[in-house]
Amino acid sequence: MDQTRNTIPDALGHERELMARVRELLQGPQPGPALSLFLEVHPADQAQLLSEIDLARRQSLLHLLQPGQAALVLEHMHPEEAAEAVAAMGPGTLSAILDEAGPDVAADILKRLPEEQSLQTLQGMDEVEGVTPLLEYADDTAGGIMTNEYVSVRADTTAAIALDILRVRAEEVDDVSALLVVDDCRRLVGSLGVTRLALARPTLLVADIMDPEVRHVAPDTDQEECASLVERYDLSYLPVVDEDRRILGVILVQDLVDVMEQEATEDMYHMARIGPERLFGPPLGSVRRRLPWLYLNLATTILAALVINFFESTVARVVALAMFLPVVAGQGGIGGTQTLTLVIRGIALGDLPGRRALPLLGRELVLGLIHGVLLGAVIGVVAFLWKGNGMLGVVVGLAVGANMVIAGMVGAATPLVLRALRMDPALGAAVVVTTVADVVGFLIFLGIAASLVSSLE
Amino acid sequence: MDQTRNTIPDALGHERELMARVRELLQGPQPGPALSLFLEVHPADQAQLLSEIDLARRQSLLHLLQPGQAALVLEHMHPEEAAEAVAAMGPGTLSAILDEAGPDVAADILKRLPEEQSLQTLQGMDEVEGVTPLLEYADDTAGGIMTNEYVSVRADTTAAIALDILRVRAEEVDDVSALLVVDDCRRLVGSLGVTRLALARPTLLVADIMDPEVRHVAPDTDQEECASLVERYDLSYLPVVDEDRRILGVILVQDLVDVMEQEATEDMYHMARIGPERLFGPPLGSVRRRLPWLYLNLATTILAALVINFFESTVARVVALAMFLPVVAGQGGIGGTQTLTLVIRGIALGDLPGRRALPLLGRELVLGLIHGVLLGAVIGVVAFLWKGNGMLGVVVGLAVGANMVIAGMVGAATPLVLRALRMDPALGAAVVVTTVADVVGFLIFLGIAASLVSSLE
Repeated sequence: MDQTRNTIPDALGHERELMARVRELLQGPQPGPALSLFLEVHPADQAQLLSEIDLARRQSLLHLLQPGQAALVLEHMHPEEAAEAVAAMGPGTLSAILDEAGPDVAADILKRLPEEQSLQTLQGMDEVEGVTPLLEYADDTAGGIMTNEYVSVRADTTAAIALDILRVRAEEVDDVSALLVVDDCRRLVGSLGVTRLALARPTLLVADIMDPEVRHVAPDTDQEECASLVERYDLSYLPVVDEDRRILGVILVQDLVDVMEQEATEDMYHMARIGPERLFGPPLGSVRRRLPWLYLNLATTILAALVINFFESTVARVVALAMFLPVVAGQGGIGGTQTLTLVIRGIALGDLPGRRALPLLGRELVLGLIHGVLLGAVIGVVAFLWKGNGMLGVVVGLAVGANMVIAGMVGAATPLVLRALRMDPALGAAVVVTTVADVVGFLIFLGIAASLVSSLE
Repeated sequence: MDQTRNTIPDALGHERELMARVRELLQGPQPGPALSLFLEVHPADQAQLLSEIDLARRQSLLHLLQPGQAALVLEHMHPEEAAEAVAAMGPGTLSAILDEAGPDVAADILKRLPEEQSLQTLQGMDEVEGVTPLLEYADDTAGGIMTNEYVSVRADTTAAIALDILRVRAEEVDDVSALLVVDDCRRLVGSLGVTRLALARPTLLVADIMDPEVRHVAPDTDQEECASLVERYDLSYLPVVDEDRRILGVILVQDLVDVMEQEATEDMYHMARIGPERLFGPPLGSVRRRLPWLYLNLATTILAALVINFFESTVARVVALAMFLPVVAGQGGIGGTQTLTLVIRGIALGDLPGRRALPLLGRELVLGLIHGVLLGAVIGVVAFLWKGNGMLGVVVGLAVGANMVIAGMVGAATPLVLRALRMDPALGAAVVVTTVADVVGFLIFLGIAASLVSSLE
C-alpha cells in the first residue's frame, strides 16, 4: 500500500485529494468509473462519500461492490442510512453482504428493514445464530450495542491451548485485546490480557494467570450507564452476561465512543427543542421533527401574551413597562438555562447522584440570589436614569432579580424531577424553563407595576 | 479479592454499600478510621469520595496514602481537582507520588501548580525525562493528552526478540494492545498487534508481520481532531510524531473518551453562556464565571428595549402590540437556536466540511421559509380572532414568519463564520442568535406596525 497515505491529518494531503477525485467521478452519469478509486479510500471515507450522493446513485454503487467490500462500508454508516441504502436490494444479495458484516451491524440494519425483507434476508444468511439473539434487544441497551465477536477460554485450560484457541479465532475476531475466561457452565469468571497470555509459561493454567475481577453488565442496562462504567473504570471492553453470568456478548470501547457522542447530541437537541434529525436528511423529515416543538413554543409564548393582556390597562398607562418586558424575560431565561445546562450535563456525566441533589439546589439558590441582586441593581439604576422614574427602577430591578432566582431554581429542579420520574432529564426541560422565565417573569413584573401604577406614571 | 465486587452495575449492591460506609467514616473528625475501607474501593471511586469531602480533609487523607496509592487516585481526578488536592504537599512527598503516576498525569498536575512548587517537585523526581517534554504542549493538543508509556520495536528484529522486549516492558506499560515499529532512526514505520506477534513464527522479522499503515498526528494537532480521527477510523491508539516521523508519544482511546466528553460539555456550556465551571466548585468561582455572560446578556436585552423605546408612540397608540413582543422574540429565538444547535453539533462531529456549508444554508433557508409560513399563519389567525383586528393579525404573522427565517439563517451562519475565522464555533454564537431574534424581530414587528398604525388602532 501507498506509504504516503499515512499523512499527518492536519494536512490530509493525498487522502483529501483522492477523496476529491472520487467525489468528482461520482457526479458522472454512471458510478462505474469511480469504483476503482473509491475502493482505495478507507471504508470510513467511503461511507462519507456515499452519504454525499443521492440515494439512487448510492444504491447502484453499493450494488457494484463485493459483499465483503459492501459490508465494510455499511459498518461505517449510521444504521438508518445503511438500512436506507440497502432497502432496494434483493434478499439474496443482502444476505451475502450481512454475512460478511459484524453480527451487531447486521442486526442494526435488519431491525430497520421492513419486516418481510428482514425475515427473508435473515433466512438466507449463514450467520443466523450470531445475529438472531441481537435482534431482541433495544438499540439503546447493552444488548443492542454488544457484539458476539469475542474469544473465550475455559479457566482449566493451559496457556498453550489458550494461545491455540486465540490463533484459530484471531482471524474472524478483529481487535482482540483480552480473552474472557469461563467455567465449565460458560459462566464468566475472569479475563486474560493477550500480552499476559503471550508472556506466560505454556503449562500454566488460565485460572492462575487470569484477572478474576471483570466488571460486566446485564443486557438491559442502559447504554449511557455502560458508557459511564467504561469511562469511570478505564475499561477497554465490557462483557454482557445473563442472570447466571453466562456471556451474551461484549461491548467494545470503540462502540461506546459512538454511544457517548449520540447521548451528548441527544441532550443538546433536547435543549434546543429538536427531535432526532440528520443534518442533510430529507427536508420534510426535518419539518415534521421541528414543527411540534415550534407549535409547543408558540403556545407557551401565547401564554406569556395572555399575562400581558391581563395587565393591558397598566401597560396602557405606563408604556415604558413594555420596553422592559424582554429584559425581564431574557434575564430569567439565561439564568434558568445556565443552571439547567449544568444539571443536565452533570447528570449525563454521572457527577450528580441523587443524594447530591439537595446540596445542588441549595448552591444554585445562593448563586441565583447573588446574581439576582447584582443584575437587578444594575438594570434598576439603568431604568431609573433612562426614564427618570425611581419607582420604575425599583420595579424593574425587583422583577429581574426575582425572575433570575425563580428561573434558576426551576432550571436546576426540572431535570432532577424528570430523572426521579425515570424520564429523560433533558427532554422538555428547556420548554419548562423558558415558559417560567416568560410567564412568571411577566406576572411578577406587571403584578408589582399594577399595584404601584400611580407612582409609575 | 472479593468476588462479589463484580456486581451487575444496575444494582451495584456491595460496591454502593461499601462507598456509603466509607462516606460515613470520612465525615468523622479524623480520616484515619476510613482508610482501610477507602483502599478497598476502586481508585475511580476513591477519587469520587475525595471530591465529596472538604479540601482540608481531602488533603489529610491523601497524606495517609502510600505514593503508589495516591498516584492511582490522582489519575482518576480532574487535573484541576488533583492539583488543588496536592497543593499543600511538600515537594519531596509530591515527587514520590508523581513518580508513580503516569507521566501524562504528572505533567497535567505540574502544569497547574505554582511555578516554584512545580519546579522543585520536578527536580525531586526520578522520571524527569518522561515528564519534561510533556510540559511543553498545550492541554488541548495531541501533545497535551499523549502518554509516553508505549512499547516500540525495530522493524529488523525478530518476532522472538520483540516478544522479549514486550515481556520486559509489559510490567511498566499497562494496556499494551500493539507495539509501534520504528526504523533505525526511531522513525515510525508501522504497528504490530500483540495477538499477531504472539501467534507469529519466532524467526519472522517484525517488518514482515507488521501493518505499515499507521495513522498518526503532529503534537500540535487539536485534541478534537484527534478524537474524530480515532472515532472515524475505529483506532485504539494514535501515535504522535514530530516532523521526521519520530515518535513523541501515544494517545490511547480511553484518554480520548474524556476529550470527547469535555468537548461536548464545552459546546453545551457555550450554548448556555457559561464558562468552564464545576458543579460543586467554590460558589464565588461560579459567580465570576457566569457574571460576564449575564451582564453581556443584559446589554443585549437593553438593546431590545431601545428598539421598543424608539417605537414608544406606536406602542402607546396600540397597546395590543406589547402582548405580541414575547411571541415574536420567542419564535425567532427557538428557530435560531434549532439551526444553531444542529450546525454546532454537525461541526463537532465532523459532519459539516466547509464545502457543505452553502448547501446547508440553502436547506435551512427553505426550512425557515416553511416554518415561517406555517407558524406566521397560525399566530396571525390567533391575533386576528383574539383582538378582532385583521391588520394586527397580518402584522404579527409577518413579523413572526420573517423573524423565524432571519434568526434561522443567523443561527446557521454564525458558527460557520466563527469557524472560518478559526474561532470556536459555539463561543458567543447563542448570544448573537438571541440578540438578533430580539432586536431584528422587534424592528420588523414594530416597524411594520408603525407604518400601518392608523389601521391598527
